[in-house]
Amino acid sequence: MLDSIAQFLDWFGLCVFALTGALVASRKQMDIVGFALLGSVTGIGGGTIRDLLMGALPVFWVQKPAYLLTCVLVSCAAFFVAHLVQSRQRLLIWADAVGLALFSVTGADIAQAHGAGSVIAIALGVATATFGGIIRDILGGDVPVILRREIYVTAALLGSSVFALCLHLGLAKNPSLAAGFMAALALRAAAISFDLSLPIFVNSGGNNNP
Amino acid sequence: MLDSIAQFLDWFGLCVFALTGALVASRKQMDIVGFALLGSVTGIGGGTIRDLLMGALPVFWVQKPAYLLTCVLVSCAAFFVAHLVQSRQRLLIWADAVGLALFSVTGADIAQAHGAGSVIAIALGVATATFGGIIRDILGGDVPVILRREIYVTAALLGSSVFALCLHLGLAKNPSLAAGFMAALALRAAAISFDLSLPIFVNSGGNNNP
Amino acid sequence: MLDSIAQFLDWFGLCVFALTGALVASRKQMDIVGFALLGSVTGIGGGTIRDLLMGALPVFWVQKPAYLLTCVLVSCAAFFVAHLVQSRQRLLIWADAVGLALFSVTGADIAQAHGAGSVIAIALGVATATFGGIIRDILGGDVPVILRREIYVTAALLGSSVFALCLHLGLAKNPSLAAGFMAALALRAAAISFDLSLPIFVNSGGNNNP
Repeated sequence: MLDSIAQFLDWFGLCVFALTGALVASRKQMDIVGFALLGSVTGIGGGTIRDLLMGALPVFWVQKPAYLLTCVLVSCAAFFVAHLVQSRQRLLIWADAVGLALFSVTGADIAQAHGAGSVIAIALGVATATFGGIIRDILGGDVPVILRREIYVTAALLGSSVFALCLHLGLAKNPSLAAGFMAALALRAAAISFDLSLPIFVNSGGNNNP
Repeated sequence: MLDSIAQFLDWFGLCVFALTGALVASRKQMDIVGFALLGSVTGIGGGTIRDLLMGALPVFWVQKPAYLLTCVLVSCAAFFVAHLVQSRQRLLIWADAVGLALFSVTGADIAQAHGAGSVIAIALGVATATFGGIIRDILGGDVPVILRREIYVTAALLGSSVFALCLHLGLAKNPSLAAGFMAALALRAAAISFDLSLPIFVNSGGNNNP
Repeated sequence: MLDSIAQFLDWFGLCVFALTGALVASRKQMDIVGFALLGSVTGIGGGTIRDLLMGALPVFWVQKPAYLLTCVLVSCAAFFVAHLVQSRQRLLIWADAVGLALFSVTGADIAQAHGAGSVIAIALGVATATFGGIIRDILGGDVPVILRREIYVTAALLGSSVFALCLHLGLAKNPSLAAGFMAALALRAAAISFDLSLPIFVNSGGNNNP
């Protein structure tokens, strides 16, 4: 039962990321197979990178094809109903935020289940949360999300770190997952709503040719 | 002997994909090492992704360097003779079509030989057929082939599916390979010749800001 | 002691590549987390690809988190001091050259330690040396370094080949590493300083539509 909550969150993250891939496909006016491809790559991309880096092979969706089929199903459904949504760009941004927050904790959890220590669990949580979107943007011909001047990777880093810290402090897994998820989502939501960003690197005055 | 036909098709697909990589290098006016790199990455890229996802490591060309050397040889030959071709763009498109059709069936075949079920074999056939070209386009600075409004991924999907279906219906491997290859090539050739495309996602009237 | 020299060179290459990633982040005016991400991906990217292709999993930095932490540390330090550098572009180019030369020999060395023959060791040396920069450029939204008309991949190929040849001729490992490193760095330095390039592919006169 404990495990099934983590698995449900992971599966839900996969669905919302698949939806964001399908929404990019809709903006690019792709056909239904393009929707299925971009939705699947976005939904399973982050976890695939995580499994490759850890050597947990075959990757999760090759072991359980239901993950891939779910992505295809979500993407194909989006093909038929996405045009009914008032603002697809807004839906994309918020679905991406929820997926980012979910994968930042479930990715770290899966890494720890494979024996990773805290540093690597946090790093693989960030990788799981961000690489689906990075691959989506590169394949979709968009500017990679990490280049936009918003708090994005930072939110994933916060989520993974809060999760790992809670576990380290002796909290049980489910409340730790919840704490990390809420921390990541709150930061990302604040960044979207109030246009927050971290202080950026600014050129010094005399250097016009960086 | 049966196996050697599948291996010959796979090796031939590798050669034509290496050629397409070299042709992109020629359009970008790269030097001979650039030809070798882009040709090799395109020729072995799809199969490398397939092997990584399945965990069939080291990947095939690390196990048998002859694959890599073949790509280098084809690319270097193209460096010296590509300028003799009347329309390199036309050659690129058709070589890519043949490679796509070949890898869609040999990729699925290799996946099944490693124990994959039908769904995963079809998915890995599509991945083998399309990722070489995707990597080629990204490294070459072109718009990824999957974004162009043509039947491309769909042709690979048809090829893998026909192959898996024929096997499932009890056909022997070689006729199944042939059937899948011909289905994929016929669809891709029709798409190129008659500018076919699937119905695309179109915005609803009132939504000018997707 | 012998091994520690190779490991020191590998670690030093990781640091200078992490620095190049941070310098790209500074040009793109990213925040400190962006510096850490782009620096880390550049520093560990090439070796990660090498380990994946060989099946040496988990990849090196998952086994030893100190590599990842070093990249993060170098990137964060760069966030605070990079604006003091007169010409960041110049520093980036030369740090990249040193990293390229170092990884071309240490990558080949690590591949051989995992049982690779000469051809594959050379190929994986080139992959280790070039893919960190390729990933950096793609994520950073720059034209991939391999497309610029300079001797780049060729320098990595020379370094790996000289290293493998020296070993093959019976030289000890450390002088072989030094010979390969110096050959790669000398060629890359000459290319930067004198704007050298290999003969490129040029269209024949009558072909205006390649």
